[in-house]
Formats: sequence, C-alpha cells, structure tokens
Amino acid sequence: MRVAILGYGNLGRGIECAIRQNEDMELVGVYTRRDPGTVKTLTGAAVYSADELPAKKDEIDVLILCGGSATDLPKQTAEYAKYFNVIDSFDTHAKIPEHFANVDKAAQENGHTALISAGWDPGMFSLNRLYANCILRDGKDYTFWGKGVSQGHSDAIRRIPGVQDAKQYTVPVEAALESVRNCENPELTTRQKHTRECFVVAKEGADKARIENEIKTMPNYFADYDTTVHFITEEELQRDHAGIPHGGMVFRTGKTGLNGENNHVIEYKLTLDSNPEFTACVIVAYARAVYRMNCEGLKGCKTVFDVAPAYLSTMTPEEMRAKLL
Amino acid sequence: MRVAILGYGNLGRGIECAIRQNEDMELVGVYTRRDPGTVKTLTGAAVYSADELPAKKDEIDVLILCGGSATDLPKQTAEYAKYFNVIDSFDTHAKIPEHFANVDKAAQENGHTALISAGWDPGMFSLNRLYANCILRDGKDYTFWGKGVSQGHSDAIRRIPGVQDAKQYTVPVEAALESVRNCENPELTTRQKHTRECFVVAKEGADKARIENEIKTMPNYFADYDTTVHFITEEELQRDHAGIPHGGMVFRTGKTGLNGENNHVIEYKLTLDSNPEFTACVIVAYARAVYRMNCEGLKGCKTVFDVAPAYLSTMTPEEMRAKLL
Repeated sequence: MRVAILGYGNLGRGIECAIRQNEDMELVGVYTRRDPGTVKTLTGAAVYSADELPAKKDEIDVLILCGGSATDLPKQTAEYAKYFNVIDSFDTHAKIPEHFANVDKAAQENGHTALISAGWDPGMFSLNRLYANCILRDGKDYTFWGKGVSQGHSDAIRRIPGVQDAKQYTVPVEAALESVRNCENPELTTRQKHTRECFVVAKEGADKARIENEIKTMPNYFADYDTTVHFITEEELQRDHAGIPHGGMVFRTGKTGLNGENNHVIEYKLTLDSNPEFTACVIVAYARAVYRMNCEGLKGCKTVFDVAPAYLSTMTPEEMRAKLL
Repeated sequence: MRVAILGYGNLGRGIECAIRQNEDMELVGVYTRRDPGTVKTLTGAAVYSADELPAKKDEIDVLILCGGSATDLPKQTAEYAKYFNVIDSFDTHAKIPEHFANVDKAAQENGHTALISAGWDPGMFSLNRLYANCILRDGKDYTFWGKGVSQGHSDAIRRIPGVQDAKQYTVPVEAALESVRNCENPELTTRQKHTRECFVVAKEGADKARIENEIKTMPNYFADYDTTVHFITEEELQRDHAGIPHGGMVFRTGKTGLNGENNHVIEYKLTLDSNPEFTACVIVAYARAVYRMNCEGLKGCKTVFDVAPAYLSTMTPEEMRAKLL
C-alpha cells in the first residue's frame, strides 16, 4: 500500500512513525503547503509541494489528511477525494453531517473511498459508544476525558495578556467515576465531571492575581469548572510538561433481566503518552481498511461504524479466528 | 424480525429477556428437546418441540442456538443453518476452525447467514483484542477474567466425594493488573494472573481437610493457582452466592514514536451481575446483524470480526453519525 501524508504537524509526524510499524505500507511522500525545502521529516521521507498532488493520482493508494478541523479539512477532504482514497480525523462534531455529505459526493463521483473522523474521539470512543448501546439497550452513557493536555484550553490561556506560556490538563473527577462504576446512574453537571489544572508561566512583572482571575472566569473554557492555576517557571514547564498525554473513558451502564434486576458496566479506557501518535495509529489502521474496501468496490464516504473490523488487520481470516477469537 | 430460541437454560432465559428490550424483534417461539409441556417460560413465550423446527423454516428470521459448546452446538449450528439464519455462542477455542468450516458449508449451500462465537469471550473481548492489535502494532496482550463465577470449576468441586454444593470465583491478581497498567510488560505465569476462591458446602460428617486438599491439588483446575477454600452452610451459599456474576479485562499495551519512546494502554473492562444475561444481550444485537446481512445477500458463516458495527444498531446511519460519532 502506497500511503502519502498531507500536512506535517504533530499528527503528520505521528503518521510517519506509525507507517514504519505497518510492514504492508510504504510512505511515498509528505506533501505540504509550505516551501518543501523548509520541511525536514523525522525519518527522511521525501517532501513535496501540495500543488503536485493531483499529478500523483495513480501513485498513491491512500492520502492521509493531517490538517486541522477548523479550516483545513472542510475543504481538503472533499477536494482530494476527487483524486484519491482519503482519510481524515475531522472532529468538529456539529459539522459532521455536512462534512460527510460533501466528502461522500466527491468520493462517489470519482469512484473513491473516504473515511472521516478517525482517531480516538471521534473514533474508538464512538465505536465503543455504538457497541455498548447496541448491547445494553436500557442504560446510560458517560464519556470522560483525561488526564490529558487540551490544546484549545492551553491556547486560550496563552492569549491572556501577561502570559508567556501555559499548559492545561483536563482531569476526570474521581468521585464521578466511582459513582458511574457503582451503577448509581448519576446525573452529572459539567463541574462534577472534570476539573481543569493550569500550569502558567507569567511574563516578568505581570499581575498573577489578575491572570488567575481571568483564567478562572473565562466563559466556556473555565468558568463552569473547578480550575486550579499553578504559576511555574519556563524551565519547569519545559521539564515537567513537555509531553502531550491524553486519554479518557467511555462507559455504558445498563440493566437486564425480567425486572431489570441485574446491572452491568462496560468501560473502555485509554491512557496515552502521546495523543497525536495514538491518533495516528488509529488512522493508519483505518487507511488499510479504506484501501481494501475500495479494492472490493465499496465506494463513497464511510465512518468507523461502516468498517468490518477484519478490514483493519493484516492477518488472514483464518489467523484472526485462531489467534484472536 | 422474528426470532426463535433453541434450548431453554440460563442463556435461553437471558435471550428471552433481552428480546423484550429490542423493539424491532419478536420472540416467536422457544424450542426444546424436552417435553414442551414441562417447560414454563419467564414471559409466557410459547414452547414447542425442537422436532417442529424444520417445518417453521419460513416463519423464523433468525434462530438463536442456546445449547452448550461441548456436545450441542457442534451438531446443532450446522444442522439448523440448513433451514435458518443462525447464531451461537460456541466457545471451545481449539475447535473454532472446524466448527466455522462446518457451519459455513451448510449456510452457503442453503443461502443462509450464520454467526458463531458471539458473546463476551469469545465476542466483545475478541473484538477488542483485534482492534487493539491493529492500532498498537508493537505491543503486548493481556486478558484477565473475573471476579466471577466459573461454572466449570464449580462443577469440578461438586464432583468431589463429600461435597454437597460449591461455587468457585476466578479473581484477577491486583498486582498483575497494576503492572500491566503501568506498561511494565510483565511475563505472567498462570499463578500470577488469577487466584481461585471456593465456597463449599460439605456433607454431614465429611472430612473437610481431605476435601480442601483434593480441591487445591486438582490438576488443570486448581493445582496451578493459589486457591482459597471456605466451608460454609447451605443457607450461606444460597444467601450470598446465588448469582452468576462475571467479567474481566482485555488490555493491550504498546509503544509508538520514532524510538518507541511513548507508551499507551488500551483497556476494555466488563463488570457483569449476570454472565448469561449479558451474553444474551450481545447475541441478540448480533442476531440483528445476521438477519440484515442475509437480506443484503451476505451469506455463509461470519464471526464478530466480519460485521460492520452499524449492522448492530436500530439507528439510521444519519442518527448514528449525529449522536454517537
């Protein structure tokens, strides 16, 4: 399988590493909108201008789109589905129906296969929500995120005057997890589910009390949460908070039996040292499925819900049944 | 969807209850090899002789086989795949390839769809092993069972002279779970993974020391484990150990990054008050998939690996993408 990457940020680098762990795949190029001469890849993979992509139409089996959901993917995925089988990690939840329709049209018209919203949420968490809902019909769903770094919240802190740098962790509330695991079916407010922990480097002479207050009262981002702010030095931030860990849990609890007398808990939990690298691993597995489905004539836009798990594996059906069933 | 049950034990009763939670399904009959007059169903569902099944060929969309893996299913699933779409929970691991081949032949020849080995292990645990293996390519798998009742081990104790009744719990070792979750990649012996806890009612005058010794030294079942034996009264057994809880965890831990510098943990955990009722819920969801796949012309024998998750749900693709993705 010849795979190419469009966009070379954290996710692109994660894809580059993940492809090396999949012996049936070859990375045939990293495409960028920057000057290719300024981009140096981790593994020495060749870098080309994104302008060259349409001409490579017959040399790439799947194009992996590594841009952002805000402005890149809404244009890119449908555009490149004209030339290639494509996969993205689009995660703007409210716009998934529109994005799906656009990508499906382009893929169908050009005989390609596309998969949108691969990763862990959306992605593996979505799959677990679906499976658990189909199994436990009379039940309740809970999703918790963290402990992990939220890029959006870290950025929001960095925009406050007087802040030099910052990192924000989303942390699930232990008492809420406990209550869910005990099948108490709690109704949880935003504040009861997660806390927010901020590590902030203030500029010299900045008013720390004002910064702390601006963080804690920021609408949408922090006002609805119990937020802790720690002021630390730049050295401490670099030393202790350089990683991009994340993770979380999807639960469904439900009742069975003649009178709903038996309780059950399904829990799917991810603990990830690197959010972009794990996301990349999921995308690469689904890139295999996209190519195979295209070879079998299954065209158009798909999501993780439409992919039989066997398409993700390099094992034969016989091996899978013998080793994993 | 018209669904029928063959075999009315714990699993059959679980299926009967689960069908009531699925509004698109109707239980059209419970079939038994016993005298139908002697079988009383929980919900008042009609009971028929298994001999009548072939004549009901056009009145049943999926037949759910609720017999045992030792002697019932190896014959029944292939036999009834001649007349019906069928699903079973066959769990004799070593014989899955042979069972698959037999069922596939019968289903293919008669234009039916079959699914074998549905449930939680094999079933949901298998699925999670597959997904996690496709995502984390450089990693290690662990499956733990419990805390829960092992019917096979309970039966083995009951066969010891002097034992009136018994219940055996399989318990995962906390230190082993901790080590796996910490990405220490331990190599675990049988003894290091699980302990066995036995609650035994001795017959009057029986030699308890001999019974305890026979349990603890029983090859295959107990000798390789740290086993605890508690002698209790019949009343205590009825009061405190009447349920059939079970569950367990599937882990995969793995490394990503240019030099494998980042660790990740995927954990899927089930905590079940009733093993047969949860198994039944999984089977009923896959029964829906079997019928739909048959309607779409996907014939022959399948496993959970071959079923796109969307087939399990009563939601439309649009609803799924909007609500669960």
